[in-house]
Amino acid sequence: MLQDQLQNKINSKTKPLGALGMLEEIALQVGLIQQTTQPFIARPTIMVFAADHGIATTGLVNPYPQSVTAQMVLNFLKGGAAINVFTQMHQLKLLVVDAGVNADLSHLNQPDFIHAKQGMGTSNYLLSLAMTNDFVLGSIEKGKELVKIVSQGGCNCIGFGEMGIGNTSAAALIMHAITRIPIQECVGRGTGANDEQLSTKINTLEKVVALHQLQHLGNEPLKLLSAVGGFEIAMMVGAYLAAAAEKMVIVVDGFIATAALLVACQIEPMVMNNCIFAHCSDEQGHAKMLQFLKANPLLNIGLRLGEGTGAALAIPLIESAVAFLNQMASFEQAGVSTATE
Amino acid sequence: MLQDQLQNKINSKTKPLGALGMLEEIALQVGLIQQTTQPFIARPTIMVFAADHGIATTGLVNPYPQSVTAQMVLNFLKGGAAINVFTQMHQLKLLVVDAGVNADLSHLNQPDFIHAKQGMGTSNYLLSLAMTNDFVLGSIEKGKELVKIVSQGGCNCIGFGEMGIGNTSAAALIMHAITRIPIQECVGRGTGANDEQLSTKINTLEKVVALHQLQHLGNEPLKLLSAVGGFEIAMMVGAYLAAAAEKMVIVVDGFIATAALLVACQIEPMVMNNCIFAHCSDEQGHAKMLQFLKANPLLNIGLRLGEGTGAALAIPLIESAVAFLNQMASFEQAGVSTATE
Repeated sequence: MLQDQLQNKINSKTKPLGALGMLEEIALQVGLIQQTTQPFIARPTIMVFAADHGIATTGLVNPYPQSVTAQMVLNFLKGGAAINVFTQMHQLKLLVVDAGVNADLSHLNQPDFIHAKQGMGTSNYLLSLAMTNDFVLGSIEKGKELVKIVSQGGCNCIGFGEMGIGNTSAAALIMHAITRIPIQECVGRGTGANDEQLSTKINTLEKVVALHQLQHLGNEPLKLLSAVGGFEIAMMVGAYLAAAAEKMVIVVDGFIATAALLVACQIEPMVMNNCIFAHCSDEQGHAKMLQFLKANPLLNIGLRLGEGTGAALAIPLIESAVAFLNQMASFEQAGVSTATE
Repeated sequence: MLQDQLQNKINSKTKPLGALGMLEEIALQVGLIQQTTQPFIARPTIMVFAADHGIATTGLVNPYPQSVTAQMVLNFLKGGAAINVFTQMHQLKLLVVDAGVNADLSHLNQPDFIHAKQGMGTSNYLLSLAMTNDFVLGSIEKGKELVKIVSQGGCNCIGFGEMGIGNTSAAALIMHAITRIPIQECVGRGTGANDEQLSTKINTLEKVVALHQLQHLGNEPLKLLSAVGGFEIAMMVGAYLAAAAEKMVIVVDGFIATAALLVACQIEPMVMNNCIFAHCSDEQGHAKMLQFLKANPLLNIGLRLGEGTGAALAIPLIESAVAFLNQMASFEQAGVSTATE
């Protein structure tokens, strides 16, 4: 049916069969998401969710101080971060969301900044739950609501990025709980821990695994978010769910964004149908997360920055895939001879 | 010196050290090519060299008829091919060069089409040399001349593509002679040979290796081109040499484009300093060619189309690398705290 029509259209183009590799798979996928043989990418957008993590204040998991989260939000709003450069270069819309930064940002008033603060960072999960179930549900709802608004604004292709000092730890814990891969293989250097810091990070997260009995939360996405999640991660879970419901093309960024996707897929496995994987991060653990999801990323260029930068860099490839499907001539149109068997 | 200044500038940006992976290496490389800490990409261009190969008329090496080369040139000029779509999408200039297509194209008159025909295709190298030494020298000179003109027009970033039915055979023979990798490992399916066609292609090229004693031509680039080269390949050799001399950023496409680079590097090894490798092609042999050159490609997405399509798709990544170097804020500028050791 539609799948065959799309494949025939791809095969009719003036190129050897299959010669555009993964771009052909993406053209097919976007056609299926949009249920048309003439798909299009409209107002591609990167939403960066920022929040703080209580664990970061302990200094046990990260070399940067927690204040960097708020400082980087200001950097986003002034246009100085990597994601600003890449979204501007590739003509993507950038939205920054305060999901729970531990700083009062209420005075900041510009159209690309969304106030959705759930709290002044999560609680330290070495001592308690990161957040109550109400906050989990509230964050997910808010993420859904925000993406619905973006969709209603005409965007049909979205990537989610994040900023949050300490959030590779939350992502590693989530990965461990859901994939059952040993925690040591889930934990990486994050923003750049040295060997000693990495060792402390692993030891700390092993304690968290035991404290919250994460081995029992692999099929309990809401409880898992409550135990070790972050406001930005929970909000991204809602964002993925709404983006799939709105039939958007979802461009999946790196380690933390993929951890949020793991949770979203537990709630609604069909989300995967809408996902295109932008890149394989250099953060240890991401490659195994992608394997777990049977995902084949577009880029493998050693990125480990977050902010949605990998998604932003991959969108031109996705646009290229859709463009060849719509714009290339067929053998018949161009009067080009086909292969002889 | 400059290298340190560039590295310091990269490291000062508001991101963890090294977090932009290969984009950081490219920013450094482009700075070194242009000898500045503020490099820029101007008028990025794809030049597609088209020519025919005598061997193609035998039907022994390719499933498509030779007439497809000319048909595809017409498709390029009408805007219907993959390279048209990608250059348009990414705002690249496209130039098409008749280096030696076996069809009279002299009536075609449009500014993006360059008449540089060296002959009506090469001779069949199963019977004789593909071309005389004079044609080798003439093709190389023409390639140099054309790239100099493009450089004088303000372009400082160029990728070379090709179209020529049968030219994966010439590329495999060149690869075998220079890398000394067994011919069977150099030969691939090209535009899509089936198992039987592939077997015939390998048998045919084994005969060519013996006939022209290619084992003695690994350090004789001009004789090698004379024996088994193509007009488009020889012209690309000149194009690489001139692009490096003009201090351009060279974006290296797939199997045939890299074979031409192998030859160019024998004439002038410094060409490599200017090369950024766009992608690893799905054409068997390209990965080993890249290994031989110690090259690390940006994309690995199963492309095997030629036409410079891989180069066109990689240029947005190169532009992104240069943009982050110029546009991102430093920690100091943005007031962001750095890591604690």
